[in-house]
Amino acid sequence: MLKITFLGTAGSLPTPYRNPSSILIKKDSELVMFDCGEGTQQQMMRARTGMMSLSSIFITHFHADHVLGIPGLLQTMSFQGRTEPLYIYGPEWVDEFIRILATLGYCRLGFDIETVQLEPGDIVEKNGYSVKSLKTEHGVDSIGYAFVENKRPGKFNRQKAVSFGVPPGPLFSRLQQGNPIEVDGRTVLPEEVMGDPRPGRTIVYSGDTRPCDDVLNASKGADVLIHDGSLDNKQYDWAIESMHSTASEAANLAKKSGVIKLVLTHISSRYTEDVSPLLNNAQKIFNNVIIADDLMEINVPYKNKVK
Amino acid sequence: MLKITFLGTAGSLPTPYRNPSSILIKKDSELVMFDCGEGTQQQMMRARTGMMSLSSIFITHFHADHVLGIPGLLQTMSFQGRTEPLYIYGPEWVDEFIRILATLGYCRLGFDIETVQLEPGDIVEKNGYSVKSLKTEHGVDSIGYAFVENKRPGKFNRQKAVSFGVPPGPLFSRLQQGNPIEVDGRTVLPEEVMGDPRPGRTIVYSGDTRPCDDVLNASKGADVLIHDGSLDNKQYDWAIESMHSTASEAANLAKKSGVIKLVLTHISSRYTEDVSPLLNNAQKIFNNVIIADDLMEINVPYKNKVK
Repeated sequence: MLKITFLGTAGSLPTPYRNPSSILIKKDSELVMFDCGEGTQQQMMRARTGMMSLSSIFITHFHADHVLGIPGLLQTMSFQGRTEPLYIYGPEWVDEFIRILATLGYCRLGFDIETVQLEPGDIVEKNGYSVKSLKTEHGVDSIGYAFVENKRPGKFNRQKAVSFGVPPGPLFSRLQQGNPIEVDGRTVLPEEVMGDPRPGRTIVYSGDTRPCDDVLNASKGADVLIHDGSLDNKQYDWAIESMHSTASEAANLAKKSGVIKLVLTHISSRYTEDVSPLLNNAQKIFNNVIIADDLMEINVPYKNKVK
Repeated sequence: MLKITFLGTAGSLPTPYRNPSSILIKKDSELVMFDCGEGTQQQMMRARTGMMSLSSIFITHFHADHVLGIPGLLQTMSFQGRTEPLYIYGPEWVDEFIRILATLGYCRLGFDIETVQLEPGDIVEKNGYSVKSLKTEHGVDSIGYAFVENKRPGKFNRQKAVSFGVPPGPLFSRLQQGNPIEVDGRTVLPEEVMGDPRPGRTIVYSGDTRPCDDVLNASKGADVLIHDGSLDNKQYDWAIESMHSTASEAANLAKKSGVIKLVLTHISSRYTEDVSPLLNNAQKIFNNVIIADDLMEINVPYKNKVK
């Protein structure tokens, strides 16, 4: 399973319908969070995502609308008995930020927080996936992220295995798991019956940024690109000044990269009543695009199954 | 107008339906806030209260569920162009808390914050009302508040004024506003035609606390008491340990005080599906009691009109 849940899709100002920024990726039973705006813990409750299997929070930058949900989330997990450490990654200032948070409230946490400062290009290796930090352009220290699943085993050639005399059953599994087996005094190696390893799935999240090369490059061959699409074409000058992207710019980048699906987020409050200006702008350039909504879920299938 | 809007009614843990603590009082065109838990700014948007006429925030104590909404609210008001100073009152640590907040984000506010540390018994005089700080018992520095409207003029005795030869019209208004007037060469004094000044309305908010004398005394003759009613009778031991009140204890205090209406808040997440244990416990002792809900509004009429 690889599922994205949008916990907050607002621009700098929340609205009654959009929380500040937060995205949750569920890989199998593990939760990985990207940004954590105010109210994120309640959105997790509303989306019924659970909390205890949250392993890491990756912060794109330290503007308030991306981080103010952290202290409340930490406290609630502590109240609920968490003891597992939590990893918090981010650009410069992540250590200081968490140190300041610890001085804010009377609450003492029942678990440790490990903060890790990332430079663009850094890769965090996890169990079954890695997260690469991307250089972005937002006027403060900021990074985007590429969530990259490890390669998965190649396709199992059942016919070939049978032709080697391997009987269907437990020995098939052993080969698929990468172990050599013995049949009729002959050793069958996994590489004889398995195709080349196949790439895992990749999700790229731009954070708040002008369009930039690192996000473009990470999106080449990716499955989903979640990109800042704060503004429509009429707000182009303001997009440059505020260092965000227009929906058209995000769509252009998606098109160039060949990513399968584009999801626009960080939606300005000026589109509270109607997001069609953003969608229309983007669809003229890139067809497979949607506007993120709070509590929207996207299941990311393996490539040959992506619509 | 005197209206209470419950922005957050949750206990220490929010739920999908209850935000952390915050209460807003609207007196005429001015907004006064008591506590400001995470997500309060969005609740203000949902309740369509506006933000710009918020003059003060009164904090009962610095547990996270009562204060984490402050930084986001400040930033949003600043984005929206606020320049008027905002007053933030609270027990010991209010200055330090706000100083720490200022170091948290990249945002520079466009308005000043004046923090004022209160001791129990302190009275903050405002235009048309005052707010008195009450000693409470919650295991950390904590205070409750009594919001007390200034006395309003006595009843105008129209018949008497006419008998003095005052013609209905602008001269009535001048008398009602406390000015002497002259009719047929005779001076009519306001006190000759106005009854004794009548008390304004009083709202008491306990914050998180065990039942205590200061809240009891402030509630004598008050219109509305908003009291910690976190737990039902079965949780009595936990109420003592966590220094909250049961619904029954709040009802007993309300009964003793003679307050007109009791509103229970800070509702524990264990009653998410069903608040009837709280309501049943309280109603056995005090009839005019309700459980606060998020976005609930209560208009507080003058006493002779209170149901």
